[in-house]
Amino acid sequence: MEIPVVRNVLEANDRIAARLRADFTRRGILVLNIISSPGSGKTSLLERTLNDLAGEFRMAVIEGDLQTDNDARRVAASGAQAVQINTEGGCHLNSSMISEALQAINLEKLDILFIENVGNLVCPTEFDCGEDAKIALLSVTEGDDKPQKYPYLFHKAKAMLLNKTDLLPYVDFDVEKARAHARAVNADLAVMEVSCRTHTGLDAWYDWLRAAVKAKKEASHD
Amino acid sequence: MEIPVVRNVLEANDRIAARLRADFTRRGILVLNIISSPGSGKTSLLERTLNDLAGEFRMAVIEGDLQTDNDARRVAASGAQAVQINTEGGCHLNSSMISEALQAINLEKLDILFIENVGNLVCPTEFDCGEDAKIALLSVTEGDDKPQKYPYLFHKAKAMLLNKTDLLPYVDFDVEKARAHARAVNADLAVMEVSCRTHTGLDAWYDWLRAAVKAKKEASHD
Repeated sequence: MEIPVVRNVLEANDRIAARLRADFTRRGILVLNIISSPGSGKTSLLERTLNDLAGEFRMAVIEGDLQTDNDARRVAASGAQAVQINTEGGCHLNSSMISEALQAINLEKLDILFIENVGNLVCPTEFDCGEDAKIALLSVTEGDDKPQKYPYLFHKAKAMLLNKTDLLPYVDFDVEKARAHARAVNADLAVMEVSCRTHTGLDAWYDWLRAAVKAKKEASHD
Repeated sequence: MEIPVVRNVLEANDRIAARLRADFTRRGILVLNIISSPGSGKTSLLERTLNDLAGEFRMAVIEGDLQTDNDARRVAASGAQAVQINTEGGCHLNSSMISEALQAINLEKLDILFIENVGNLVCPTEFDCGEDAKIALLSVTEGDDKPQKYPYLFHKAKAMLLNKTDLLPYVDFDVEKARAHARAVNADLAVMEVSCRTHTGLDAWYDWLRAAVKAKKEASHD
C-alpha cells in the first residue's frame, strides 16, 4: 500500500524538477545539491567557497533545515543571496520547495546555485531538486565504511568531498578504504580531501567548480 | 495529498508498536531505540555496553542498516544475540520490521533489547518501534547546534549521550551550549558525556541502564 504512493510523490517531484532543470540550463546556471550527514560541514564548505570565489562567480544558496535560519544567516554574511527553507520535520528538500524558494532569488546573471539539503544521508538522495549534480560530503569522523553502508548517495553523486582531514590524526579513518568503498559503488566519482576548518585542499574543489560552470555555460548555448 | 497517507502509515505503525510494547512489558524486557547521525558511534557504544555488562544483563540487539551486516557482526562478537535488518534504502526502522526480526530472537530471560536504528536524525524519530525510550547519540564532531536544528529527536529522547569527548580539544564544540540547546527542547533529558573510544564516562550510562532495567522489571509485576 505504501509503495505506489511513494512512487506518485516521486513522479510529481520529478516533473517539477525537470521543469526547474530546463530553466536553469536555459539560463546557464550550475546547480549543485549538497548532501551529507548532520554536521559534516556543508555550511562551512559553502562559507569558504562563497568567500573565496566571490570575485569570480555570482552565487546564491538555498538552505534546507528542519528549524532555524542559522545556516542562511551564516552564508549570507559572504554577501551571496541566501534563502532558508524550514521543512518543520521533513527529512529532505524537494523540487516544490526549491520552486517556492526561487521566488526570493534573482536568477539574472547567476553562475552557481548551491542547494544545501537537510542533514541526512538517505532521504535527500531520492528527491531530484533540478540539480546538475549531487555533491556528497563525508567527514572523516564518521567512519570510512559510510559509502558502503549508505551506497545510494555515493552511487548518484558526481563528487565526494572528504572533509575534516585535520582530524585524521585523532580518529580511526582509513582514507584509502573510504575511497575504495566509494569507487566500488561509483567508479566515476571525483574524490577530494579537504579541511574547511584549516582551509586545506579547497583548490581542487574550486577547479572542479570552474570546470562544471564552464560545461554548463556551453550546454546553455547548444 | 501526501499528509493523510503518512498519517495512515504512522497509525498502522503505532498499532503494531503498541502490541510489541505490551509483550515487552509483560516479559519485563527494557527496550531502547538508539538514534543518531551516521557515524556518531551507536555501534561502538553497543560493543562497549555488551562487553562491559555481559555478566550482569542478558542483552540482544536488532541492527538497522540500508545495506551490509557489518554492525550485527560487530555486536555479535560480544556473544549477544544479534539480528540485522537491511532496509535497502529505507531511512528508518518501523514496528513491522522489529516484529519480523523478533522471530529470530529468543526473548526468554532477556533483560535488555537494543534497537540500533538507521543513521539519521530525522525519520527514525517518527516511527515508534515499541521501545521504552529513545536514546539520542550526538558526537562532538557534529556541532553543538544540532539539538536546536534537529529538535524532534532531542524532544522525544529520554537520554542524550555526547560521544567522542576525546576529540573535544580538536573541534569547536561547546558542551554547555549543546546541553543548553538540548534542555531547551527537553528539560527532563538526561545528558551524559562519554568517549567509547577511550572508554570514558560510560559508568554514568551503565547506572542509567541499571535504573531503567529495575523500573521495567517492577512495571512488569504491576
